[in-house]
Amino acid sequence: MSAPSDPDAITSVPVALGERSYDILIGAGLIAGAGATIAARFPGRAVAIVTDETVGGLHGQALEQSLDGAGIRHIRISVPAGEATKRFAMLEQVVDQLLAARMERGDLVVALGGGVVGDLAGFAAAIVRRGMGFVQMPTSLLAQVDSSVGGKTGINSRHGKNLIGAFYQPGLVLADTDVLDTLSTREFRAGYAEVAKYGLIDDPGFFGWLEANWRGIFQGGRDRTQAIATSCRAKAAVVARDETETGDRALLNLGHTFGHALEAATGYDSARLVHGEGVAIGMAQAYRFSAKLGLCPPDDAERMRSHLTAVGLPTELAHIPGDVGDVDRLMTAIQQDKKVTRGALTFILTRGIGRSFIAGDVDPTAVRSFLAEELARR
Amino acid sequence: MSAPSDPDAITSVPVALGERSYDILIGAGLIAGAGATIAARFPGRAVAIVTDETVGGLHGQALEQSLDGAGIRHIRISVPAGEATKRFAMLEQVVDQLLAARMERGDLVVALGGGVVGDLAGFAAAIVRRGMGFVQMPTSLLAQVDSSVGGKTGINSRHGKNLIGAFYQPGLVLADTDVLDTLSTREFRAGYAEVAKYGLIDDPGFFGWLEANWRGIFQGGRDRTQAIATSCRAKAAVVARDETETGDRALLNLGHTFGHALEAATGYDSARLVHGEGVAIGMAQAYRFSAKLGLCPPDDAERMRSHLTAVGLPTELAHIPGDVGDVDRLMTAIQQDKKVTRGALTFILTRGIGRSFIAGDVDPTAVRSFLAEELARR
Ligand SMILES: NC(=O)c1ccc[n+]([C@@H]2O[C@H](COP(=O)([O-])OP(=O)(O)OC[C@H]3O[C@@H](n4cnc5c(N)ncnc54)[C@H](O)[C@@H]3O)[C@@H](O)[C@H]2O)c1
Ligand SMILES: NC(=O)c1ccc[n+]([C@@H]2O[C@H](COP(=O)([O-])OP(=O)(O)OC[C@H]3O[C@@H](n4cnc5c(N)ncnc54)[C@H](O)[C@@H]3O)[C@@H](O)[C@H]2O)c1
Repeated sequence: MSAPSDPDAITSVPVALGERSYDILIGAGLIAGAGATIAARFPGRAVAIVTDETVGGLHGQALEQSLDGAGIRHIRISVPAGEATKRFAMLEQVVDQLLAARMERGDLVVALGGGVVGDLAGFAAAIVRRGMGFVQMPTSLLAQVDSSVGGKTGINSRHGKNLIGAFYQPGLVLADTDVLDTLSTREFRAGYAEVAKYGLIDDPGFFGWLEANWRGIFQGGRDRTQAIATSCRAKAAVVARDETETGDRALLNLGHTFGHALEAATGYDSARLVHGEGVAIGMAQAYRFSAKLGLCPPDDAERMRSHLTAVGLPTELAHIPGDVGDVDRLMTAIQQDKKVTRGALTFILTRGIGRSFIAGDVDPTAVRSFLAEELARR
Repeated sequence: MSAPSDPDAITSVPVALGERSYDILIGAGLIAGAGATIAARFPGRAVAIVTDETVGGLHGQALEQSLDGAGIRHIRISVPAGEATKRFAMLEQVVDQLLAARMERGDLVVALGGGVVGDLAGFAAAIVRRGMGFVQMPTSLLAQVDSSVGGKTGINSRHGKNLIGAFYQPGLVLADTDVLDTLSTREFRAGYAEVAKYGLIDDPGFFGWLEANWRGIFQGGRDRTQAIATSCRAKAAVVARDETETGDRALLNLGHTFGHALEAATGYDSARLVHGEGVAIGMAQAYRFSAKLGLCPPDDAERMRSHLTAVGLPTELAHIPGDVGDVDRLMTAIQQDKKVTRGALTFILTRGIGRSFIAGDVDPTAVRSFLAEELARR
């Protein structure tokens, strides 16, 4: 492990959002150095660490010691690990604990965990006193390359995922690359699906680099930091162009419309499917659907499937254990997805590796016939 | 009653907030004309009316008929009347009903009611799909001159009032002045406290006009419209300068730090004290406290007390039925109020009628000794 916050090891990616601009710091030792970093950037603030029980058990103490070392007052709010935590009752509990601890508007909510903790804690920070300070310390690969960047926060509803929330930017993101060593291989792979996504959207060169170097990313070290930084840069650029998703930010949803429908169809049961796995299958489906529509060369669909398979990600409905329902059930889930605009179906489709685009008016009949084929492959 | 949306009878007050600018329309017949107005300004949107049972019973049908007449699809979501409705469980219910009705991001939440409905519905609009369209149709005087303007939305916590919420601007405010005829005199008076507030903050001319013309405002017609428009203009100007209350928007809190503490001390029991009554007493206290500190001529404190008394508003702790607790209890409520900045006590104090200012560093000992005197007057 490098020395805490060794400046040479740290890559900084700026997110340009005018008054709400902030930095993503990526590298080794950032948790150990967090106290000093926060004291320097946000002097005099108290900290509420929001974390899940798993991550808190593994890394909570290191963060608390670092805050102690910098003389920062802190509390810890712990939530159960897992997607089910992103619900109203847990939001109310976190909000209540922030207020009970008399956290003020200038104080900081620090989200230490994966996307679940980041989304929930960020939403709580957005609504307590109409907006507290907020720092993301993402600990899963998915959170480091995706959910901690861009300011989407929120919880799920029984009507669908992420239907309740706010756009709320953090003041700082600290992505400690060492912390990923305690992540399970399955979760690491799931996060890798989002890394691959940036290549598949609009960066064929990055996708080629990933095909050559993915083992290094799983192993740690320089390739890992580089893959995370490239992913954050890609996301930051899109977010800077379109903060509230009225335009091309929707490209980031490549694989997500199918993926969300699968998460709904499996009842958000992470034993069967985690978010990144749903995205992996969803991206493979977006490429196959595009090929079926004559938009994308079948070879490109096969090339991306082959890479996802090489890293151990699922790419087929058949890879999901248990029943995923029929065409009607999947269509209902797709239509309730929030990326439906005034009734029309919007999908991210593609003309090849790195050539994705927003298709705003996809024929529901074509989707149904594609889904019937996909189900028949099981 | 005038003809629906008689353009001559309608005053328009713009709220200048860049991309988020909107108009406040004030006058007779605006509910009857709402369908046409909404169809013209927001074509193709569905509407979810959020209202309380009292207001819905009195004015819901008129609004629905108007929407029907304009061919606008609508649903109604009804909540119980009263401050207790501004809580997490009700927020969850409203959000769930919006999603169950498949309201999309571009559709409109229309808040038809007083400040309670506006604050709750606006917060729901802010967080469903990370932000739906939002229209305020304030039906209480307080809501027309204060809560519907400026974009503060939210709910209460057991730790204090309005501690959970969002800044979320409406796209339009329709303040129908006729609708106030069904409001109880007590609630009308409570709203009048906020009208008087604008004079007391920085407009001594308006305060003088109110002393001369308050009977006309209670009666209806031109004076009422004028008083509401002047109040909205005053609030809009402050909000345009300081949308998220980092600076002089805090002036609008004249009377509110004491007032909120009294609402807390009476358990938010509207039989004992409604918000505007708390503000009336709070403003009288702010003037008396300023006089005691040698900042404000005692004659000005007496002059404003005398006007509030003339319209039938309370100005003393003795006017609140039942126990309000001791100095410690009131101080705790004051300190938990969200307008506490990093431990220091911020109050709005005054140098006379229309000469209020933000005092950022008020000595808690002085507040305690003032409160002891106030309690002794009971
Ligand atoms: N806000 C956004 O823009 C955005 C983008 C993508 C995904 N998301 C959301 O993110 C969530 C998925 O994120 P996720 O995959 O991080 O899920 P997660 O937060 O549930 O983390 C996955 C699992 O890994 C564990 N974990 C996390 N870091 C660990 C570590 N360093 N060591 C050991 N265990 C660790 C967690 O306890 C959890 O059990 C979903 O809810 C999704 O909707 C949000
Ligand atoms: N968002 C802001 O900036 C802001 C500013 C000031 C106050 N507020 C909030 O506003 C709330 C107080 O507002 P309020 O005084 O309007 O309370 P309210 O919404 O409870 O309305 C008061 C009562 O009058 C009834 N009512 C409303 N309009 C009526 C009509 N036309 N005819 C008959 N009955 C009618 C309601 O049913 C209710 O019983 C508080 O929660 C306060 O915190 C918010």
